[in-house]
Amino acid sequence: MPLKTTNIVSAAQTKFGKLDGLTLREIFSEAVDKATVDAGVPKEDIQAAFIGTFIPEMLVHQGHTAPLLLDYAGLKGLPATRHEAACASGATALRAGIMAIESGIYDTVLVVGAEKMTSVSTNKATEALAAAADDTFESSIGLTFPGVFGIAAVSHMQKYGTTEEDMARVAVKAHKNASTNPLAQFQKEISLEKAMTPRYIAWPLKLFDCSPISDGAAAIVLTSAEKAKQYTDTPVRILGTGQASASMNLCGRKELTSFEASVAASKQAYDMAKLSPKDMDFAVVHDCFTIAEIIASEDIGFFKPGEGAKAVRDGVTALDGDKPINPMGGLKAVGHPVGATGVKQAVVIYKELIGEAGANQVQNHDTAIMHNFGGTGATCVVNVMRRADA
Amino acid sequence: MPLKTTNIVSAAQTKFGKLDGLTLREIFSEAVDKATVDAGVPKEDIQAAFIGTFIPEMLVHQGHTAPLLLDYAGLKGLPATRHEAACASGATALRAGIMAIESGIYDTVLVVGAEKMTSVSTNKATEALAAAADDTFESSIGLTFPGVFGIAAVSHMQKYGTTEEDMARVAVKAHKNASTNPLAQFQKEISLEKAMTPRYIAWPLKLFDCSPISDGAAAIVLTSAEKAKQYTDTPVRILGTGQASASMNLCGRKELTSFEASVAASKQAYDMAKLSPKDMDFAVVHDCFTIAEIIASEDIGFFKPGEGAKAVRDGVTALDGDKPINPMGGLKAVGHPVGATGVKQAVVIYKELIGEAGANQVQNHDTAIMHNFGGTGATCVVNVMRRADA
Repeated sequence: MPLKTTNIVSAAQTKFGKLDGLTLREIFSEAVDKATVDAGVPKEDIQAAFIGTFIPEMLVHQGHTAPLLLDYAGLKGLPATRHEAACASGATALRAGIMAIESGIYDTVLVVGAEKMTSVSTNKATEALAAAADDTFESSIGLTFPGVFGIAAVSHMQKYGTTEEDMARVAVKAHKNASTNPLAQFQKEISLEKAMTPRYIAWPLKLFDCSPISDGAAAIVLTSAEKAKQYTDTPVRILGTGQASASMNLCGRKELTSFEASVAASKQAYDMAKLSPKDMDFAVVHDCFTIAEIIASEDIGFFKPGEGAKAVRDGVTALDGDKPINPMGGLKAVGHPVGATGVKQAVVIYKELIGEAGANQVQNHDTAIMHNFGGTGATCVVNVMRRADA
Repeated sequence: MPLKTTNIVSAAQTKFGKLDGLTLREIFSEAVDKATVDAGVPKEDIQAAFIGTFIPEMLVHQGHTAPLLLDYAGLKGLPATRHEAACASGATALRAGIMAIESGIYDTVLVVGAEKMTSVSTNKATEALAAAADDTFESSIGLTFPGVFGIAAVSHMQKYGTTEEDMARVAVKAHKNASTNPLAQFQKEISLEKAMTPRYIAWPLKLFDCSPISDGAAAIVLTSAEKAKQYTDTPVRILGTGQASASMNLCGRKELTSFEASVAASKQAYDMAKLSPKDMDFAVVHDCFTIAEIIASEDIGFFKPGEGAKAVRDGVTALDGDKPINPMGGLKAVGHPVGATGVKQAVVIYKELIGEAGANQVQNHDTAIMHNFGGTGATCVVNVMRRADA
């Protein structure tokens, strides 16, 4: 049965990138202000907050972020919890917000994702990110995330014939879409030749196959169907939600060319929404690496296993294709402030569904799917959303 | 309106203490097994998990704990998120579980709290714990938690005449109760003279005013009213739940002799349950320091502001008193593996309410309140629970 009542009534993100001089609490507050007062939702109406941050303990030496950030954002006193599931932290906060609304305990809640990553060295950030993998079996022996996704890429290449050029095309598309997104970290198109520059990070993944280290925040307001029209004429319903987990370490997986948690969470979300991949007009997926977008496009059922690369080659996933994926630019080119990402994905879907995506507007925009995962797909959250008037 | 449907049908904790040779995942799994298969709840019935851990990033160099721990505990695949709110992490996971059940999205879920703290030095653990305070305004200038609660103690002493001996009596009671609790870290009574040993940690708090650094885990199974009788003849209902936040740093507080988030969360939980302090047979409160128990006993409305110390002196909060507090021994003597604490508090209430607390059984056991906070009370969660047949 589709979710009874959860609607998104406002959504906003800060600029993503290296936000010099701005602290975590400042970035967080900017997103909150944009999604509340600036969007016509008084802060007094917010009853609870659900916050996604991945690893501020290591990045900014701060735990217990929820009350701290809320206080700074002018929301002191509210019930607020920090939700963490590595790169899926934002989407797990969103799911907690959904359950809060569906439970009837709250009418109107705020979901925020935020991360400040650039105040430490790249090495330190890489170490922090590695905490999303199994420390005993992976991180401690030197396997960090470019390596892990390099393994997935090699598997996909071997099993399906996917090429380095196919992956590079994902990067070209991401940069093209982000070039017209003023909040993106990289607002610059790149050529296929440039994307193929052989600066390997972890073979076969090259520099342009990897999402960057970023600062940023995103926020959305959820409310019940009853209250939604108070805030906007164009609410977006969340119809279905799914979440699944898998073994943290790759050695516990049956295969590496598909992430079982993505497949399971997608099925849950589609089943709950009583919809299928063919009903989706577009998708926002977790493209931490280009290969991750190709695999995700198959795992969410847009394409058969092994056919994701062909879809990119044929332009099917382009902004003007039949099944646009990451129409604003994705993690790859917009940036990946880890805790913010899952919430930012919902922001993108909201903007696209209500027709306010500007130069990045997809043509058909009734229904869409978001897919956010953590680690090497050890946690996956999928939501199916539809414009309330669609 | 009281919560519609959430019941606790099983609850268990591991031994708390310095659990040498046991890793976080092993401790976690032990608690899960005790609360599921050992308690007649098949693991196959669990649909989702809500996990509280405070700071495994710094204590065991591991983030993204939810899928990792679930996999090890034989629950791979389930949706699972880690919830963090410093020392209230466990209770925020519990609240997420409550919302999941109340939303109707899941029928049966697992809530687990766990922490492995003793594998690092005491200095490193103290640094990790300090991440629960505001790094900019408190931790970075050297104010760690014994200092923060020392300030609260001084304030209470100055305003109400509370004495070091009053605080020591809280420790004596805690150790007495824990002496018959086989899962406690300290199963040994102490004399008032010993509790007054002038080994100051942060004046006026002495060694025996402080809860220890501990390893441990606790788990409970929540299910809907409809399903509860499948698992036990003695389910416990959660009638009311509240959560509030306050400024992280003390300089943002109006007063230090009461924690405003505790007062607010208690009011929410009582109001939802349509009950009041006089309806509570006993309480389990967050006694990270002895002064914290005195303040909590006032904040939850058991005693008027400033009268908590007298209640301890008069034996009102003793196991056989009129308003027993922490009947199993509290954080002070049972131990405080941070993420586990909020869930362990629910375990204590469950055991007491169903009459299975052995030598620590309180006489009247229909209805009780649990109070778990994080930081210097910057997050507080309060739940009101009642035996389903009461």
